[in-house]
Amino acid sequence: MAAAAPPPAPTPTPAPPVEHQLNPTPYTTFVRIRLATPSDVPFIHKLIHQMAVFEKLTHLFTATQESLSSTLFNSPPFTSFTVFILEVSPNPFLIAAPHLTQTLFSPIVTHVNLDLPIEDDDSEEFKIVGADGSEVYVGGFVLFFPNYSTFLAKPGFYVEDLFVRECYRRRGFGKMLLSAVAKQAVKMGYGRVEWVVLDWNVNAIKFYEEMGAKVLQEWRLCRLTGDALQAYGD
Amino acid sequence: MAAAAPPPAPTPTPAPPVEHQLNPTPYTTFVRIRLATPSDVPFIHKLIHQMAVFEKLTHLFTATQESLSSTLFNSPPFTSFTVFILEVSPNPFLIAAPHLTQTLFSPIVTHVNLDLPIEDDDSEEFKIVGADGSEVYVGGFVLFFPNYSTFLAKPGFYVEDLFVRECYRRRGFGKMLLSAVAKQAVKMGYGRVEWVVLDWNVNAIKFYEEMGAKVLQEWRLCRLTGDALQAYGD
Repeated sequence: MAAAAPPPAPTPTPAPPVEHQLNPTPYTTFVRIRLATPSDVPFIHKLIHQMAVFEKLTHLFTATQESLSSTLFNSPPFTSFTVFILEVSPNPFLIAAPHLTQTLFSPIVTHVNLDLPIEDDDSEEFKIVGADGSEVYVGGFVLFFPNYSTFLAKPGFYVEDLFVRECYRRRGFGKMLLSAVAKQAVKMGYGRVEWVVLDWNVNAIKFYEEMGAKVLQEWRLCRLTGDALQAYGD
Repeated sequence: MAAAAPPPAPTPTPAPPVEHQLNPTPYTTFVRIRLATPSDVPFIHKLIHQMAVFEKLTHLFTATQESLSSTLFNSPPFTSFTVFILEVSPNPFLIAAPHLTQTLFSPIVTHVNLDLPIEDDDSEEFKIVGADGSEVYVGGFVLFFPNYSTFLAKPGFYVEDLFVRECYRRRGFGKMLLSAVAKQAVKMGYGRVEWVVLDWNVNAIKFYEEMGAKVLQEWRLCRLTGDALQAYGD
């Protein structure tokens, strides 16, 4: 709705900068980061597929819900492959959700104030309905596992995937997920958090550098897979 | 001992190629690849330091025998950080070394025939004397641990370090160590073996490609460590 024009000013004054002309109504979005459970596999599967599309690597995507279920959740969190889920909701999260009260990791609950509401066209696909009828939406995930530095003689975490759905980007949610992993690494006395980035993904590189990471230009990833790997079997 | 000169031939014949003029005595060197045990930590520590020197990265080397002991060997082999040790000996290995008979990994025993004996100036530092007085020498190691591909929904192995001492190089021992990891990956139904290489180490890149690995040129390693990591603690 257009505002009525103000009466003419007695003397011309310069127009304020554009951002000051806006007087946004904040839309508060509540966020929770928690450990994934086996019931999250359908969401994890869809998120991995969206990531493969974004990375133009769908020809390498062969994961199924069944293969994810059989390979994740076989070890206690942080000792092997571990997934954090990012949930968003227009309503506050109950801090003391009993099924999420884990001694190893207390869910991180926060909120952001946005100028505009988030339009989520896939909300039905990523909706979780609680026992009390509350609705939350899966917005992203991070999958990581321990690695080891022989120079430090310390474990660290390697982040295999960090993904936030398109409509939730540029709100700090990716930073929240990666920060949660870094915080857990510090808590456990670990020495490093590492991951890889595609060299053409300049936005991601800028984002990681702003978070304090160094991009190591000299190292190249080597991969032995498929028939070349199978040749080493008996 | 020089052979007596043969009687002059009735007609001159061309000299055979140089390699055919040599008639080397083969020096058989026996090799064993086995899982490391906590008693190998002093060797592992020295090997990691030699690797740091080779990679010109001694400023990053802070490992001690104590820190290695407290972070390795806390989980069953292959479920977390795992070390294979390469041993060499002028004498055959006893296949049925009772203390090495592990259900998860049977030591790999083989031999190579060399034209010249290996001159190991550091043999005293890397000597293991068996209960029967037999002497073997630690020649190298590989440290690896499980990683995970979300696209395959399968675990793999990530090789953090592969190192063969200078005097044992160019005899196929590095290939034996990496092959042992690849073979174990196939045995466990894993999808990939991955590692990183410095882009200036052209010999290593050639070696890895000959083993069937692909060098992925597009990916860059990101690392969050030191104060930048600690900042994520509370």
